[in-house]
Amino acid sequence: MAKSEATDLRELLRVPPGGPLDLGTYDPRATPAGPRNKAAGRAAVTALGPELAGLQERLFAAATAGDRRRLLLVLQGMDTSGKGGTVKHVVKLFDPSGCRIRSFKSPTDEERRHHFLWRIGKQLPQSGEIGVFDRSHYEDVLVVRVRGLVPREVWSRRYDEINRFEESLAADGVTLVKCFLHISREEQRRRLLARLDNPAKRWKFDPVDIDERRYWAAYREAYAEALALCNPDHAPWYIVPGDRKWYRDWAVSRLLLEHLTELDPRYPPPSYDVDGCRARLLGERVKGRRRAG
Amino acid sequence: MAKSEATDLRELLRVPPGGPLDLGTYDPRATPAGPRNKAAGRAAVTALGPELAGLQERLFAAATAGDRRRLLLVLQGMDTSGKGGTVKHVVKLFDPSGCRIRSFKSPTDEERRHHFLWRIGKQLPQSGEIGVFDRSHYEDVLVVRVRGLVPREVWSRRYDEINRFEESLAADGVTLVKCFLHISREEQRRRLLARLDNPAKRWKFDPVDIDERRYWAAYREAYAEALALCNPDHAPWYIVPGDRKWYRDWAVSRLLLEHLTELDPRYPPPSYDVDGCRARLLGERVKGRRRAG
Repeated sequence: MAKSEATDLRELLRVPPGGPLDLGTYDPRATPAGPRNKAAGRAAVTALGPELAGLQERLFAAATAGDRRRLLLVLQGMDTSGKGGTVKHVVKLFDPSGCRIRSFKSPTDEERRHHFLWRIGKQLPQSGEIGVFDRSHYEDVLVVRVRGLVPREVWSRRYDEINRFEESLAADGVTLVKCFLHISREEQRRRLLARLDNPAKRWKFDPVDIDERRYWAAYREAYAEALALCNPDHAPWYIVPGDRKWYRDWAVSRLLLEHLTELDPRYPPPSYDVDGCRARLLGERVKGRRRAG
Repeated sequence: MAKSEATDLRELLRVPPGGPLDLGTYDPRATPAGPRNKAAGRAAVTALGPELAGLQERLFAAATAGDRRRLLLVLQGMDTSGKGGTVKHVVKLFDPSGCRIRSFKSPTDEERRHHFLWRIGKQLPQSGEIGVFDRSHYEDVLVVRVRGLVPREVWSRRYDEINRFEESLAADGVTLVKCFLHISREEQRRRLLARLDNPAKRWKFDPVDIDERRYWAAYREAYAEALALCNPDHAPWYIVPGDRKWYRDWAVSRLLLEHLTELDPRYPPPSYDVDGCRARLLGERVKGRRRAG
């Protein structure tokens, strides 16, 4: 553990900048650093909780004094890859007051009439907040590309548009942490079957999810291109092995911890006279007691 | 514990319908039911977690099949009464994906140009969600009344407006759970001093909070009237003893549990052919293996 703790997980999971990406060389069951089994993984996530919550509070506190920084966790991955599970187990470690969680479904009619980034811009975290996107603007170069929902000349422009958008976010104080939850086609099959087998999970199942599996290779190609083309240092992509849920949760927690630690948010110094306020409150007690006596 | 578990906490903490309310008869340190000390209280809240999360998931699942019900927890109370702490310790028990938490500060210029319920209506929970208001439309008959921010003829009309608004919410499937976190003036003084003494809490302090203490009696009167006048069975007020943080957290958790249990949300039956889908996925494996082999 000592060795893995010292490792910067960002270096291990980051999509290498430049050049094309071959997802086939990434093992969805890999555990390249950190805990080696489920029990250790769950314990490690729980142990990270107080540290993550402490960093979040400092980020939030700093914002009350004008610090504009915030963090945006972007979760992408195939159906059943664990976007919801990551929110449930990792984002839950933070104080809910300071989180802004948004799930992006198929766009509404109104959203369709606007530029694809219009609905995204309205849901960004505010200063001091932890934002979470369960799916995101990347859907507009993923499902939209694979299923041909707009012509190629439209979606092919979007990589540049996304890069410009994310550059403006970074310049405005947003730390982008983009995680591709990488699962195998076989693991997806297992998870879909598990949803069917469990009456408490059937509501999560949609037969369309089976149809979509026919496009697995096309999705993989679309993901590889999005991850390679939109991967600057200020908005990096991480490939998180997703077949083992406990490892996925640990890896995302750890990536958040590393980014927040680097941000190093600080409690703002008081802008008022601490001793004077204390004296006022203490003096008040005496008056109150006299009045009561 | 057996006895207190059997008690419906809603009956014990509900503001009695009809008639004026005298907050002086309510002890902010009371523990009228449930755990008797801090350790037991904290353990009880933790123990309620899985049950609350399970009910939330069913509420969320039901909404995917058209159930329009949702819950809105309204938290009100003087400064330092623990609205934020309740979110941190109680709302954290739910899956963050299904929560919609809103904090209402002083209205913006734009909000001021609209009816006082305008900004509230935009932040309601959607079907299946747990909404949380940290302060709410009640501020418009509390601070606004105490500090004379609008003429009496304006704020005095608002009790009826709030009642009509909440009636429409209830008719639309919103279960309102309104909690007044009741602390003593002395406890507030202790908590303000604690914020001054702890460098990690000073950012939460505002000298204006000391000035506001001069209006304690007027706030108490305004609270008593709001709680008495806006207290129908479909949108009841609860007085939650707030001087002991662990009891406050337990009581709010328990009130939420009782309301959600009464709602009794159900997983929707599948709208698709479960066996057919399972067969498709299982058959797919064979084909996949053949292709791979």
